[in-house]
Parts: sequence; structure tokens; C-alpha cells
Amino acid sequence: MIIPVKTPAGGYDIVLERGALANAAEYLPADKKAFVVTDDGVPGKWVQMVTQALPQAAVHVFPQGEGSKNLTTWQGILQAMLAADMTRRDAVVAVGGGVAGDMAGFAAACYMRGIPFINIPTTLLSQVDSSIGGKTAVDFEGTKNIVGAFYQPQRVIIDPDVLGTLPARHVAAGLAEALKMAFIYDKKLFEDMEKAGAAAMTDPDLLQEIIRGSLLIKRDVVEQDVLEKGLRKCLNFGHTLGHAVEAAAGGILLHGECVAMGMIPLTAPALRPRLKKALAAYGLQTDIPYTAEALRPYLVHDKKRGAGTITAVCVEEVGRFVLREMTPEELLALL
Amino acid sequence: MIIPVKTPAGGYDIVLERGALANAAEYLPADKKAFVVTDDGVPGKWVQMVTQALPQAAVHVFPQGEGSKNLTTWQGILQAMLAADMTRRDAVVAVGGGVAGDMAGFAAACYMRGIPFINIPTTLLSQVDSSIGGKTAVDFEGTKNIVGAFYQPQRVIIDPDVLGTLPARHVAAGLAEALKMAFIYDKKLFEDMEKAGAAAMTDPDLLQEIIRGSLLIKRDVVEQDVLEKGLRKCLNFGHTLGHAVEAAAGGILLHGECVAMGMIPLTAPALRPRLKKALAAYGLQTDIPYTAEALRPYLVHDKKRGAGTITAVCVEEVGRFVLREMTPEELLALL
Repeated sequence: MIIPVKTPAGGYDIVLERGALANAAEYLPADKKAFVVTDDGVPGKWVQMVTQALPQAAVHVFPQGEGSKNLTTWQGILQAMLAADMTRRDAVVAVGGGVAGDMAGFAAACYMRGIPFINIPTTLLSQVDSSIGGKTAVDFEGTKNIVGAFYQPQRVIIDPDVLGTLPARHVAAGLAEALKMAFIYDKKLFEDMEKAGAAAMTDPDLLQEIIRGSLLIKRDVVEQDVLEKGLRKCLNFGHTLGHAVEAAAGGILLHGECVAMGMIPLTAPALRPRLKKALAAYGLQTDIPYTAEALRPYLVHDKKRGAGTITAVCVEEVGRFVLREMTPEELLALL
Repeated sequence: MIIPVKTPAGGYDIVLERGALANAAEYLPADKKAFVVTDDGVPGKWVQMVTQALPQAAVHVFPQGEGSKNLTTWQGILQAMLAADMTRRDAVVAVGGGVAGDMAGFAAACYMRGIPFINIPTTLLSQVDSSIGGKTAVDFEGTKNIVGAFYQPQRVIIDPDVLGTLPARHVAAGLAEALKMAFIYDKKLFEDMEKAGAAAMTDPDLLQEIIRGSLLIKRDVVEQDVLEKGLRKCLNFGHTLGHAVEAAAGGILLHGECVAMGMIPLTAPALRPRLKKALAAYGLQTDIPYTAEALRPYLVHDKKRGAGTITAVCVEEVGRFVLREMTPEELLALL
């Protein structure tokens, strides 16, 4: 199916389809020179399916992981794009998870002040979340996502079949983000996910339905708030504490795992058991394994902070959220 | 006077006024935290006028010159912004020439994916050209302006009185860009500039008129073509060869001086004497002091190039331009 997304500059299509990569030629511009950015954790067969559809492709591979999400990797991509003589008539294609999408997207945003960008997310987390909305960024000086750009793709291609090669832990982390969106915005999707439970982890048709539901939520939010000036903040539910947990964990926890934990303290106590149960079905941990003291330093540079407070997203009823200005200390007191 | 500029996101105002800096408090947000970016070539008194109007300002100074227009300077600015705890509620303020505007603008564009930016150009070149239109960029791996962003300011403040401290050579270089715009787009302004001749170099009221005329041309062009997809290419008149000359000169020639030379070969032979005479009034050299062999390597990475050709801007009649796809060799043959 095609999910059109409106943007101020016009818009783009999300192709969501089992087998989309096997039919990649249908969705990729074979006549264009392409610069494919991927990391060494992406199974070669997915990259090959993409390059087979792009005869003029150059492939750039960087080391897998959040540790690569920095200006050094970004400069390496820009250098290689320059060496490949890329122009504004060509396209950058990301194949991989959120880091590949961020790196390729931010490079496409800045090279010649912006050249066409196509995103092919291959993790569940990036399929339900980071691949749409136009946010690209890198970590810098110990602060997550502090340098980047709002830059819209020309097309996003999502193939749930690629999740067959994704480790279960990463599938669970992606489902945590999907559950987050349902929990703040769509009671029906949340109930469907509760019903499906662990089966969603391995059933590609169930996954496709969950991806679709998440994308419709995210589209609704980002179309109303392209530059994250208001409504879009709701998507940060679980992220303020989640980012602090992720930083404190020093790389041993996945982003979605940290978001799962970060949601609990911002949920009304009466609702917590229900959210915990839904997350536990995916094998996710829901208790934050750090003290307030350990997390405090990581809250100070949270980029949602202005004038000493943080805009915290709270849930008191399934499918709805409220925004509250809180100080870091008030947030830590919830632990 | 106020010159409003429309952009897809809304628009901004250009304040053009003799004495605007002395009245800076009227045009700057005194209640906001500000991060002022300037270089060590900008006379301290202009920076002080700005900081006096911004009680919460931090000032960041980098070394003057095109040599600073790189990702290292940019990272230094981002680092300092992070240290100053800048947020999306604050503003970056550039005080200086095109390099300061580019560096501050590109840092503002990328910090937290974009925070408010105010540009106070203090050279004639940046007043008539780079301060409006939203183009920011740095040089990278020997290629000019190859990494950057389209990012619109919130306001531009232009005070012709600051040109009193600008060396005559820089005034002439700025007048070359103004003359370029008149030559491709506005016969009347070109004739006015021909009439004023060398007097424009030192008369602030004449300068204000020329700045106004140039800004109206540039506004007209950039409003129609925000992302440089078509019309805006006309502003590159003189720039394709000009950039090559600038690179070959290795820093000893000013950008406007190179544009002056770069215009001549793309002008119809019958018109050349008239354009040369207008440029010579400012003391500008009009003959390119390099051979085709010396310039060839610098034309290959010109970023207007796609599929082996360069979109060259040519003038055959004062006030009008034509675009022609030319190979680097065809361009060099004009020398």
C-alpha cells in the first residue's frame, strides 16, 4: 500500500508492502546515479536487492551502531559523495536502521545544501518511527541528536519481510515504539497490540498491521507539526528519561528498550500495570535500573529543555497524552 | 526602511537603515539569550553595538577569512553553543561578512535541527547578496560551498553606515556583485550605477540606494525559487569562472573581484566594454589572470554541474540573462 505524507514542500509516499525490496525496481529511480549508505550490520541480501535496482549505485558502508552516529561518519559520507561526483540530480539511498537513515539523511540534507533522499528502513524501530517525519541528526559532545536537520525524503520504502533477519531483541525494541504511539494516540491500536501480544514478534502480517497503524499516527502528528514546535512533542513520550537511561547504559541497551522503561514513570500509576504487561509480552524490561543520581547529569542537556524546564509527555488515559513543564528534579522524583 | 521577504515558512524582514546598529535595541530581541558569532576582522564597535542591545549575549569570535569557512570552525561554534546551553527559544546572531553569516547560519540551521537566526551583515558584499536568500555553506575538501543548508533568517539588519570602516577594496568587491544583479535583471539600476560611478564607493546615501536596488532584485529571484531549482541560477552570473579564478588565486583575490572577472567572458562581446568600464570605475580588474589550463581543475567540481555540463548564465542585453548548458571545455574556450 501507499501512504502519502504531506509536507510544506509538497510531500512524499511511503511504500509499505511485504516483498517491496524484491520488487525494488518498481520504486527506485534506475536512471539516476545513487549513493547507497548502509552499515555493516545490515544483511547483504537487502543491500543487494537495492543495488540490483540501481545500476549506477555506489555503496558506502560504515560500522554498525550508535557509536557511528557522529560528525566523523557524516564527514566520511560527504567525502565519498564528493569523490563519487554526486550532484543535485542524483539521490542518496539509506538502507538500514535509524542510524543509517540519520547519517544518510543528514548527509543528503547538507551536500550541496540538499539533494534527493530515499529511505529504506530495515529495522522495525526505523520503520515505525524514524523513517518518517524528516528528522535527521547525529550525537555530538555526548549529547544525543543535538546536530542535524529537518529534511524530508523523496520516498520511504518499508518491507516488513526484512524483519525476518532482525534479532528478536530489536523486534521487541521496535514494538516498544509502536506501543508508545498507540498508548498516547490510538486506543484501538493499543488494544489490538495487547490482544496480539507476543505473536506480533514473529508474524509478518501482524507486524505489517502494526507498522501501518504506527505510520498513520506518526503521519497525523508530523503533518500538523513539521518542525516540532508543539504537537510533535507527544512522540517524545518515554524519551526524556529514556535518553538518560540510554546514556547511562553506555551503549548496552537499545533505544526502544530505554523508551519502554522511560514511559512507566510518566504514566498514571493506575495504568502502569497494563502498559507493563503489554511491554513484557515482548520480553521488555520495564524497571529503570539506575538511580536518580546516575541519571541526573544526562537530563541537563536534553534538547527539549528551555528556561530550566523540560516538556514532559504524560499519559493518564490510554490513547491520550498531556504535556507538562517539569524541572529535571521533578522528573527524577518520579523514579 | 523595511523590506519584507516571503518564504515557504512565512517570511522575514530586512531592516535597511543608516544608523540601524546605533538603534539595534529596536530590532533585536533583548529578552532572548543570544549567541553572537563574529570574526576578528569585524571592528569591535559594531559588535559592541549589538551586544549592548542583547544583555544575555555570549560572543564567539573566529579568525577572519575564507580559510575559516570550514567544518572545523562550524564544530567550534556548535561546541560553544552547547556549552552556553543554547535552546530553540534562543537566537544566533551573525555580525560580519559572508563568512560569519555562513558559519553562524549553518550552525543555527543544524543546532537542535534549527534555532532562530538573525543576520547583521557588515560588508557590502554580504549586505547586497549573501545575507538574504537563506543559503549557508562551508567549503569542504577544496570545494567551495559544497556542504550547507537552505536556512532562512528571522531578520536581517543592514546598516550602510558600517561600510565606513570597510576597506575600499571590499567596497569595490561588493559593488561588483550589485552591478552583476543590475546587469542581469534591472537595466535602470545598471544605468544608475554607471552614472554614479566611483562616487558610490564613498557616499553612504548612494550606497544605500544601490543596496536597496540589489535587495529588491535578489528578493524577487529568491521568492520565486527558494531552493535554487531554476531562476535563482541567474545569480550565478560570473560565478562559475569566478569560483575557479578564486580557487586558482589561493586566497589573494576577493570573491567579488573574481566575480567581476568571471562575468566578462559570459557577456556578449559587444557589451563587454560597457561592463568593463562600469567595473573599472571601482578600480576592479576585468581580465582573468590565469590560463584555461590553470582553471580547468577547479571547474570539475563546480556544484551547478550535472551530467557533464554546467548551467552557464550569459548576458547579451543589459538587464536580461539566458541560461546555457555548457561543458567545462566550452566555458574555458571563452577565455
